[in-house]
Order: sequence, then structure tokens, then C-alpha cells
Amino acid sequence: MDIGFIGLGQMGVGMAANLVKAGHHVSVFNRTPAKAAPLVAMGARAAASVAEACRGDIVITMLADDAAVEEVTLGPNGLLARLGAGGVHLSMSTIAPATARRLAERHRAQGSHYLASPVFGKPEVAAAGRLWICVSGSDASARARVLPVQQALGQKVYDFSDDPGAANVVKLAGNFLLGAAVEAMAEAFTLAQKNGIDRTQVYELFSTTLFDCFVYRDYGKLVASEKYEPIGARPALIRKDYGLILAAARDALVPMPLAELIHYRLTATVAKGREDVDWAGFAREVSEAAGL
Amino acid sequence: MDIGFIGLGQMGVGMAANLVKAGHHVSVFNRTPAKAAPLVAMGARAAASVAEACRGDIVITMLADDAAVEEVTLGPNGLLARLGAGGVHLSMSTIAPATARRLAERHRAQGSHYLASPVFGKPEVAAAGRLWICVSGSDASARARVLPVQQALGQKVYDFSDDPGAANVVKLAGNFLLGAAVEAMAEAFTLAQKNGIDRTQVYELFSTTLFDCFVYRDYGKLVASEKYEPIGARPALIRKDYGLILAAARDALVPMPLAELIHYRLTATVAKGREDVDWAGFAREVSEAAGL
Repeated sequence: MDIGFIGLGQMGVGMAANLVKAGHHVSVFNRTPAKAAPLVAMGARAAASVAEACRGDIVITMLADDAAVEEVTLGPNGLLARLGAGGVHLSMSTIAPATARRLAERHRAQGSHYLASPVFGKPEVAAAGRLWICVSGSDASARARVLPVQQALGQKVYDFSDDPGAANVVKLAGNFLLGAAVEAMAEAFTLAQKNGIDRTQVYELFSTTLFDCFVYRDYGKLVASEKYEPIGARPALIRKDYGLILAAARDALVPMPLAELIHYRLTATVAKGREDVDWAGFAREVSEAAGL
Repeated sequence: MDIGFIGLGQMGVGMAANLVKAGHHVSVFNRTPAKAAPLVAMGARAAASVAEACRGDIVITMLADDAAVEEVTLGPNGLLARLGAGGVHLSMSTIAPATARRLAERHRAQGSHYLASPVFGKPEVAAAGRLWICVSGSDASARARVLPVQQALGQKVYDFSDDPGAANVVKLAGNFLLGAAVEAMAEAFTLAQKNGIDRTQVYELFSTTLFDCFVYRDYGKLVASEKYEPIGARPALIRKDYGLILAAARDALVPMPLAELIHYRLTATVAKGREDVDWAGFAREVSEAAGL
């Protein structure tokens, strides 16, 4: 397929590479053009503008926030202006459900399709083509058309039907569950530590028994060792997601006190200038509050 | 071995049965004697009093709370009076680390051993002999002596060294992690539901991917379906544990806002008289606060 790919950040670069490897014709665009070079070496075409990336059937956006997605979609020579009737905007960034619903409405009015399709996985998972991918929006036939593209990027696709906001709600719910596990482990391990117990021993017990799953094994290792590396995503980026979670909760009238707590932790982490760690480093707030 | 077993509640009855099956000589005592009948039918001896259960080398207590353990230990004709020098009190209830440390000190003064050995697992796990067992207290040789007994009860033993409070801290940390997962899922699934998304579909996504482990699969099913059965433990019992968690956090100067939140949920659940559900039913508080 002819695919445009906009946004070559930590996630996007590995995802675009997997599309090239799968044999798709990929036109890549990034605000900082140098990021495109390794992809061009693999066989991708460098698009000089958003408009140039919109010549095919599908355009993927993988950008940092709502404002960036809105700009490339609604701006002059953006996706809305350039994607023809029947074209598909496969929007894979983590953005607000409300933004997704608004963009979908604009696409619908134009005769093009907006599909929300956020992903779960760190940059190395994206590079390995092993993402878990959510999708919702437009109709079942539009979602069927993008399936081969998603299959080149991930190990499984989860379909949440026609509401373009639904996949983003699920993505935000997942990022919330991740942070909740980090907060829980931070409080539990700190209680153990202040009772003279090795954090790592407690981590090993739980991550091999009741909580023997990726999040507790992987993020738990960071929280147990208090070494928040490698950096999967920085605190400011995920603080943005928690802003989206709380906005979605406010819109839907859902009190989420645990999400509020994690947002507070991330805000303190960013305020202290601690952008040199993975976002799970907000667990330091728990240790510090306990005088450690 | 000659083992006394005191406390034939939902957990204790299956544990005592496994000791009988493993070929140990087991004397069982329960405040309500009728609970002993099925064990006697299997070959256990019914002890008419706590003192009668203290004739062997090891006495196990599996009781509902600190007060009950203190009573059978310190009361007239209790363990302390009846266990001879070198005897072992294997204390498997979920109690405060501070209580464990105090009882251990009394045993030490008497020449007997106190081992804290709380367990993870629901009643059916106890009955299957598949518990995860923590242990700490006294010295390594006392802990080695009880290992064959623990192996008849569980699938693995985790040794947290000589501090008699340590194993209880770890147990409380685990019960806290469990409740934290319930709170997190309750907030996440409620956010999804109020966006028109099926709770069960969200549950299935996360419990087979990022959170593919016992707690999210098992407790997650209750939270997704909002059917809080079967009852593994009632809200009032686990509210007691959260009181112990907060007391341990207070003693160690560890702010635990997430533990405070769950204690609040459990208090509301008990206050509303909702003892007819598993303790994960505190998740109803989240749905109700969202107007569901």
C-alpha cells in the first residue's frame, strides 16, 4: 500500500521501518528532516511536507500531543485538505478522546475516514513490530482496510467499534493502569525498605507470583532498584497523558482519585526538573516523602 | 511431626487437612468445635483446648486478627505457658508487624521460638496446598525445622530472615498491592463504561497483555462483571488488614496515600453493610461515585 507516515519520534521511527520492511511504499515526514535519513536508506521516500506525505491511501500520524495532530490535520495543506475522498487518517498518537471525536467529525464531513489507533509498547517493542494496537472509528470496512498495515506494526489489534474516541479512552485507561502499578509498588517497597527489608527481594516475590506479568516485572525492576533507565518515555510526556486522563474523567463525570494522585506525582517530578529518567521515576516522590 | 493447629476458618480448615494428608500428627482446635469434625474424620485429633493443641513440637495459629493471636498466645493456658523450651509457634495469620515483634520477644524470654509465616492465596488455594508462604523470625535453624510443614501447605517459601515483623510487612505489602490493582481497575473500567465501552472488553485486553497475571485476571473478572463472588475474604476482614497497613506505615513514617484511599473505600463498604461480597466489592464505591 501507499502509506504516508508523519512523526518520526522514538516510536514512529521503528514503526515506519516495519512498514518499509513489510513491503509498503512509505513516504515519511518529520518536522526535523534528519530523522528520515535512516528510513530513506531502507527504501522510504522523504516527503518535504505534510502534503507530500498525503498522496497515498493511508496517512499515519504518530505525534507527541493533541496540538501536533490538530496542526497536521487541520492546518493549511494538512491531511484534511490533501487526503482525497475515501482516504484514511490512521491516528496512532495518544490524544484526548474529545480531540479524536472532533477530528473524526471533520474528516467525515470531507468524505475521508478518521481511525483512532493508539498503541501499547515501549520504543523497542515498536521497533520489534510487537505493539498491541487499539482501533476505533468510522466503520468496519475502513477498519478492515488498515488491518494489514496494523499487522506490520503489532502483534494484535483490538477493535473498539465505531466511536472514534473509544480507542483513545482505552489507551488512556492503560496508561493509567501502568502508573497505578508504579505508585502501588513505590508505596509497598518503601514500606518494606523502612522496615529493613530489601526492596528487590519484595519485588522478586511479587513479580514471580501474584503479579507475574510484564508491567510488574519491567516497571517493578525500575521501582525496586530506583534506577529509572532506560527512558521509555519522559515524565513530561506521560504527565501530558495524565492531563488527558483527568480531562476525559471530567468530561465523563468519573471521579478518579488515583489518577489525580499520579498526576500530582508527575507534576512534582517535572517541576523538579527530573526529565533525565523514565516517567516511572515519579516513584522517587514516594521515597522522598518517607525521608529516604 | 506432632503439630497443633489452632483456627479452622476458611483458610485454616484446608491447611490443616493438607498437614493430615502429608502424614503429620495434627491436633486441631477451634473456638467453634464443630469445624473440627471433617478433620477428625480424616485422622486429626480434636483438642479440647488451646493447651491440648500445644503438646507437640510446633503449634500453628491461623486466626482472624491480632487480638485472637494474642489471646491464644498470652492467655492462661496459652501457647506461651504450654509450649516447652525449643517449641515453635508458627504464626500464619495476617497481623501487625508490631504485634509479631512483641510476641516474638515474649517467646524468646521463655525459650520458645516465634516464627511469622503469613500466606498468600484464597481458601481454594489453601485447600490445594498451593499457597505462597513468607517466613521470618527467630533464627535460620528454627526456620529450617518448620520447612517440611510449610512445604505441605504451599508451593514456595520466601525467607525474610530474623526480624519477626518482616514477613508480616511483606504480607501487608501484598494485600496492599492487591487492593491497589482493584482500585486501579475500578477507575479504569468505570472511565471506559461511561464512554460507552464494554468493561469486559477492556478487562480482556489488559488481562491478556500488559497485566497477564493472576491478580488482574482473577480480581479483574470481579471488577469487570461487578459480580463480587465467590467470597474469598469479606470487606471487614480486609479492612482490618488496611488498618494494619496504615499502622505499619505510621510506625515507619511512610506516607501511603493509595493505602488511605483503599481504607476509605473499605470503610464505606462496611458502613453500608455490604458484607455479602468479596472485599474487591469496594470497587462499587467507584461506580457509585460516577453515578452508576
